[in-house]
Amino acid sequence: MDDRLSDMKILAVTCVFALQALAQGQQANPLGDGPWVFNTAERNTRIQVSIVTHGLSHPWSIAFLPDGAVLITERPGRLRLIRNGALEKEPVADLSALNVDQLFDIALHPKFAENGWVYLTYIKKGKRPDGSNGYWATTALARGKFDGSRVRDVKDIFVADAWEPLNGGDASRIVFAPDGTLFMSSSHRRNPDAPQDPKSDAGKILRLNDDGSVPKDNPFVGRAGYKPEIYSIGHRTVMGLVFKPGTNQLWETENGPQGGDEVNIIKPGLNYGWPLVTYGRDYDGKRMGVPYRADMEPPELFWVPSVTTSGIAFYSGAKIPAWRGNLFVGAMTVGRIAGTGNLQRVAFNENGEQKRETLLSDLHQRIRDVREGPDGLLYLLTDENDGVVMKISPAQ
Amino acid sequence: MDDRLSDMKILAVTCVFALQALAQGQQANPLGDGPWVFNTAERNTRIQVSIVTHGLSHPWSIAFLPDGAVLITERPGRLRLIRNGALEKEPVADLSALNVDQLFDIALHPKFAENGWVYLTYIKKGKRPDGSNGYWATTALARGKFDGSRVRDVKDIFVADAWEPLNGGDASRIVFAPDGTLFMSSSHRRNPDAPQDPKSDAGKILRLNDDGSVPKDNPFVGRAGYKPEIYSIGHRTVMGLVFKPGTNQLWETENGPQGGDEVNIIKPGLNYGWPLVTYGRDYDGKRMGVPYRADMEPPELFWVPSVTTSGIAFYSGAKIPAWRGNLFVGAMTVGRIAGTGNLQRVAFNENGEQKRETLLSDLHQRIRDVREGPDGLLYLLTDENDGVVMKISPAQ
Repeated sequence: MDDRLSDMKILAVTCVFALQALAQGQQANPLGDGPWVFNTAERNTRIQVSIVTHGLSHPWSIAFLPDGAVLITERPGRLRLIRNGALEKEPVADLSALNVDQLFDIALHPKFAENGWVYLTYIKKGKRPDGSNGYWATTALARGKFDGSRVRDVKDIFVADAWEPLNGGDASRIVFAPDGTLFMSSSHRRNPDAPQDPKSDAGKILRLNDDGSVPKDNPFVGRAGYKPEIYSIGHRTVMGLVFKPGTNQLWETENGPQGGDEVNIIKPGLNYGWPLVTYGRDYDGKRMGVPYRADMEPPELFWVPSVTTSGIAFYSGAKIPAWRGNLFVGAMTVGRIAGTGNLQRVAFNENGEQKRETLLSDLHQRIRDVREGPDGLLYLLTDENDGVVMKISPAQ
Repeated sequence: MDDRLSDMKILAVTCVFALQALAQGQQANPLGDGPWVFNTAERNTRIQVSIVTHGLSHPWSIAFLPDGAVLITERPGRLRLIRNGALEKEPVADLSALNVDQLFDIALHPKFAENGWVYLTYIKKGKRPDGSNGYWATTALARGKFDGSRVRDVKDIFVADAWEPLNGGDASRIVFAPDGTLFMSSSHRRNPDAPQDPKSDAGKILRLNDDGSVPKDNPFVGRAGYKPEIYSIGHRTVMGLVFKPGTNQLWETENGPQGGDEVNIIKPGLNYGWPLVTYGRDYDGKRMGVPYRADMEPPELFWVPSVTTSGIAFYSGAKIPAWRGNLFVGAMTVGRIAGTGNLQRVAFNENGEQKRETLLSDLHQRIRDVREGPDGLLYLLTDENDGVVMKISPAQ
């Protein structure tokens, strides 16, 4: 198919999509049923985006179970299950004892097939220290056991010391390392002093054992004035954590204010600078900090202006050969029609970043998470009222 | 109209646009006849984008004449005229004596109503210094006189000393200062050494009198080893130049390689760093230079990854009140479906940049230039085979 014909086909698909959305008229950025076909910057790669399921409220994270089922967290505090392509109507865990304000990430234990352990991070509400009215909140890690249909006995195994007033937007990711320890991010909780304070868990990446205890070889164990669970310092809102496949490199996405969204490579005991070092500006336009300090870590990649980075994945599958080894970063750029969410693709060569591409902006969806599925396709979650799971496959 | 209805209307408009484009099927990114209506980030501002004329080949710059006609340069080397909304079929200047490789900017003399002088910048082809086969080229400034229907007697008044092999993409802007002098940009001509070399005009912003001579109060006049026409040093591809209305501040857009597109405020005698200081990477992914040096000027604004900045305008009109004082920057991001041209809007407050917005990406056009017309509307040129003049007005 020549270029003109392929572009015409894309326009036709876009038009059908617009008509579907118009007919449904359900929400600000209505997404139809697809599929949609797009060209990409790689001439040999055309992709099809198709819906796995509609009907999720602000889905945040996804875990693929060995039996083919899929667990999904919804930010309002529900755990959902997709089996045989169908979303079960009722949540599959009782989280009422946790006092969840926002539910974030889900991860399976590396030996999930044997032990069924499922890990969840969330914002936990609690009473103010002085007992007065209103809530404080912190970031917590809970663990439960999947029995084949439900996740049972979900209990906290670690509650971060990052208590601050309950204040909306936040994030926490978890990822298991090749050595079996668990990395958990604890965002800044909108306290500008906490990320540089070694006595607070806020604005840190933490390293824990699979039972929530602290590994003895953590970088600050035994250092006075430092919480022993801290692995790295000086983070803002950590939206994504992933190990680069086949390596011990931990990659992280972190949102700046206006400008200064970052991808960092996280190393033990280092300081990533927030709020002292940033490419961003505050929401009132004031410059914050400086762009560089020799004693703090610069980002590996950054975005100015912000795209509102979210989940992160390396693609290692065989289905889309041109994308092997590429990094994918969800983008949730604020704004409905003007400036829209998309999927950022970063290709590397021996020198580092080689090029970037913006994908799927025509869908006008906030992309919350991106993962490679066990089938070698890329799966995306949309942070919308009618949130969906979508998958990207090669177009015919 | 509530948000849902307004979004539905926009989708309907988008769909009609897609159908029109499909029916025409003329080019890779076909643009129909519009108009299109878009929401913006400002809740009180909905805009309509409408076509002034189709049928231009890679239009580069636009000048509004006192009698209501409009002159437009086409990059392949033609000067076109729009009168009473209709594009005249034939070019209105004979530029054959200039040896134009690419035609860029057009500017009217501040006293155009009296003297009819029109200024053009372009890439001029010439023989190699050793007389061997193949062309060299440099940036030149020509002047002609508009007689009411044609621009006659177009002759060079300044030829930059920026001769390099003829090598494709380039740019040169011209703008008259409040004091009547003329600023002309001379891009890097793909010579990495030239922008820091004070004996070369390449990679510089130059200041000239209206006859092409050098003003005696230029910053390097009389300094050994410096060309006297140089005003500032260390530029790459300068795509836009504009004086902030009511001030003597000269604002400039400049394209980095991958990443590091910049807006600079140009001051006499200063060094803007290319290629020693940049936020960008080379096309092979290698880091270039450093992000900051105390002895060189940092950008006022920058984009990472690149949006391929082009023309620049401050909006000072009354028709779109929420945009008064905002900066608009054309964006031509490479790529057809994935990553598309758009219009960048930057709002300021007393702290500097306050927020940015990406507009018109749904039109999938490379925006080459943006200007405020005498009617207080914003006019855009698209860098396409079927290039258009579009205008942005408030939507009803």
